[in-house]
Amino acid sequence: MNASAPHAHLMQPQLTPRPLPAEMLEALKARFGAQRCSTALAVREQHGRDESVFDVPPPEVVVYAESSEEVAFVVALAQRHRVPVIPYGAGSSLEGHLLAVQGGVSLDLSRMNKILRVNAEDLTVTVQAGVTRNQLNAEIRHQGLFFPIDPGADASLGGMAATRASGTNAVRYGTMRENVLALAVVTPQGELIQTGTRARKSSAGYDLSRLYIGSEGTLGVICELTLKLYPLPEAISAAVCFFPSIDAAVQATIQIIQIGVPIARCELLDANAVRAVNAHDRLGLREAPMLLMEFHGSEAGVAEQAGTVQEVAREFGGEDFDWATTPEARTKLWTARHHAYLSGLQMRPGCRAVTTDTCVPISRLAESINESVREVQEAGLPYFIVGHVGDGNFHLAYLIDPNVPAERETAERLSAQMVQRALRLEGTCTGEHGVGLHKQGFLLDEAGEGAVEVMRSLKRALDPHNIMNPGKIFTL
Amino acid sequence: MNASAPHAHLMQPQLTPRPLPAEMLEALKARFGAQRCSTALAVREQHGRDESVFDVPPPEVVVYAESSEEVAFVVALAQRHRVPVIPYGAGSSLEGHLLAVQGGVSLDLSRMNKILRVNAEDLTVTVQAGVTRNQLNAEIRHQGLFFPIDPGADASLGGMAATRASGTNAVRYGTMRENVLALAVVTPQGELIQTGTRARKSSAGYDLSRLYIGSEGTLGVICELTLKLYPLPEAISAAVCFFPSIDAAVQATIQIIQIGVPIARCELLDANAVRAVNAHDRLGLREAPMLLMEFHGSEAGVAEQAGTVQEVAREFGGEDFDWATTPEARTKLWTARHHAYLSGLQMRPGCRAVTTDTCVPISRLAESINESVREVQEAGLPYFIVGHVGDGNFHLAYLIDPNVPAERETAERLSAQMVQRALRLEGTCTGEHGVGLHKQGFLLDEAGEGAVEVMRSLKRALDPHNIMNPGKIFTL
Repeated sequence: MNASAPHAHLMQPQLTPRPLPAEMLEALKARFGAQRCSTALAVREQHGRDESVFDVPPPEVVVYAESSEEVAFVVALAQRHRVPVIPYGAGSSLEGHLLAVQGGVSLDLSRMNKILRVNAEDLTVTVQAGVTRNQLNAEIRHQGLFFPIDPGADASLGGMAATRASGTNAVRYGTMRENVLALAVVTPQGELIQTGTRARKSSAGYDLSRLYIGSEGTLGVICELTLKLYPLPEAISAAVCFFPSIDAAVQATIQIIQIGVPIARCELLDANAVRAVNAHDRLGLREAPMLLMEFHGSEAGVAEQAGTVQEVAREFGGEDFDWATTPEARTKLWTARHHAYLSGLQMRPGCRAVTTDTCVPISRLAESINESVREVQEAGLPYFIVGHVGDGNFHLAYLIDPNVPAERETAERLSAQMVQRALRLEGTCTGEHGVGLHKQGFLLDEAGEGAVEVMRSLKRALDPHNIMNPGKIFTL
Repeated sequence: MNASAPHAHLMQPQLTPRPLPAEMLEALKARFGAQRCSTALAVREQHGRDESVFDVPPPEVVVYAESSEEVAFVVALAQRHRVPVIPYGAGSSLEGHLLAVQGGVSLDLSRMNKILRVNAEDLTVTVQAGVTRNQLNAEIRHQGLFFPIDPGADASLGGMAATRASGTNAVRYGTMRENVLALAVVTPQGELIQTGTRARKSSAGYDLSRLYIGSEGTLGVICELTLKLYPLPEAISAAVCFFPSIDAAVQATIQIIQIGVPIARCELLDANAVRAVNAHDRLGLREAPMLLMEFHGSEAGVAEQAGTVQEVAREFGGEDFDWATTPEARTKLWTARHHAYLSGLQMRPGCRAVTTDTCVPISRLAESINESVREVQEAGLPYFIVGHVGDGNFHLAYLIDPNVPAERETAERLSAQMVQRALRLEGTCTGEHGVGLHKQGFLLDEAGEGAVEVMRSLKRALDPHNIMNPGKIFTL
């Protein structure tokens, strides 16, 4: 909304490590023992990377917490020594969130993996932050319940809240923003607070839950989450449909959303992405732009939605409507969709992907995608597209050779052009991946200096010594 | 979640007026003229009250802004003089939000009533903060669109955002929290910033929109809002159904929600409330606990939902299912519901209402209501109940004689007992009315000192001289 001259975009983060005092390391070792407090290089390197293209700056020590009290202990100690703390969940973030650009402690929450309380009668669950979405769904399925947010990776729920994740089901069920009722958070001072209650709504003071959701570990450590659950739909049906062009697939999507079909998932794969999942999962799909859709509801409701969508798709040249009504057939399709990113990488052995994540108002989606495709084809980089198009959100992945700096520069240039276009189209530089290291310039372009300065004021107020995941989202 | 010893609850706000410098008043008069800058007692008194039981402390001056730039001018001037600013929309808040407990300027936004931009193809609209929800719906109906949030009063959309309002449709469409995409806000320093874009979702930095939503004017002035719209449903059907007891009506509601019926509205009126609306609107309804429901969807979908709900209602003794399928019949029913508060007041001429607003997890709703009814009946105060029971939210209104202090004390005691019970049942002290002056102690009981201290830190960081609606939500 504040389109001004684009800001410089970070190619590689600047490293400004703060030393870890020996006294602090000793205190950590005394409390956690060698098993849960590691300075081994392999462990540190594993915790200093994510799925981004950045090189690894490892933390100085990795601590495995098993309770909120242990998290509070580590953070209070780090606060006393002014040492950075980087919360670590499943390591699946994409924008450099986990990189220890100022050194410090990687606080691994993956062992905080208990489902604390299912309240089926209220459709709520309380979990520790290290529980993954697949673990949660496996445990509640027999109660006829599910948690819809699905970013693809089997991410931890704490990490999903920290990046305000969404994914394939967001078009119907919303994002983490809409599906968290309450949090237990350790503040940068090492105090455990509760935000929210199990009530579905509240007007009781500032919305602290929503402040921590999307704060990328910069304001505190999310230790527990109370989430909304949903009854498993009586009927679920998935379908694929192939289109003569990406534009046709996108135009069909726009119309499906505009007429208000309560579609549960509406995913685009371009021909490159279909080719990749075919190669990876032997699916034998037609290698053309494809929509992968899912419908939830009563038997009659699902049939009605599917009928409407077929009619719309046909108007735009959609063909070969293929239905998956058994759970097995559906799982096969969605597994292929979830493998799209890895499958895509395998199209160019040894490559790394520069992944984009713009989201625009639905009416601007065709323009946004078409122009981006034109530009990448002109530049001649291999690429593929997958998109949560029902939300106006899509990912274009440029496959670059990490040993050829010119390819990385081209990808960064194309990505920047794509973001600037998304902002002109009244969209956002990141629909679901977050800002991390990579999008700090884009955030300034999008929100404007004034709004980012408000964010910085909040950070300074809650974390005056900048110990929580420093260097992410913005520079102070 | 932090049940400790209850905090003292404010019976009447303490007044600590800060004088308005003559120089500032002159600057306001020079800019706005006598027509839009008034110190007349009647105007000031009108702006220093709301629908709460508190006595009026009027502001020292009322300014009518017509643009964001004028808002910025007033706030920057007030900042320079350290004078309080209280944003004023439609005056329909309920917890003392508008009372000028520290004097200052009431900044009336009701003339900022332009609908700036309807993007029907994206289901979004951008409005000035003074646009009311009825005005908006009247203007977009011919485009087949509607905005669902309906707190009863014809509130301004800026005010609805400021209190995180919800109301009858929230069970299906969510609250202001879920339906605001972007805001234009004047900060306490008088700077205009944008939060969010027209994209449906974003992970771009801290969620400033959600921070201002529910901030009750204490962090800045909401000047413009970009909202989600919805296609008018193909079919709408409303029904009333009468139950042998409140408990039976609530049990039916619980089951409707638990089995996942996508009901659009599910409102409870107790026999007292039905009696009141009968008297006020000559409806001739059976004077028994009543659910008033609405279903949105396709023709087939609505029929299916209605069938399921009738079955559930019958299990709990629900009778006299009466359908309103014409728009006129529906309007009549919902008008009666919206009159319930005023109709209730008329049951005891000269009375004022102390209104409660707890919200609990749906499985605890019966216990919450039943105990509250038992207590008010024991105390012998006249009362009525209306509730957005599909959300677990209900309002019990105690009708007190303002000239009898003992009645007010009894009402406050009952209200406090009810809130403490809601907190024990893992609910909230306010589902939709906000904290204002009245619920500051309850907020401490609910959130705990640690979380409220985080809120205070945010306030101090963004508004260090405490000029924005001072004395509300918490004491600094």
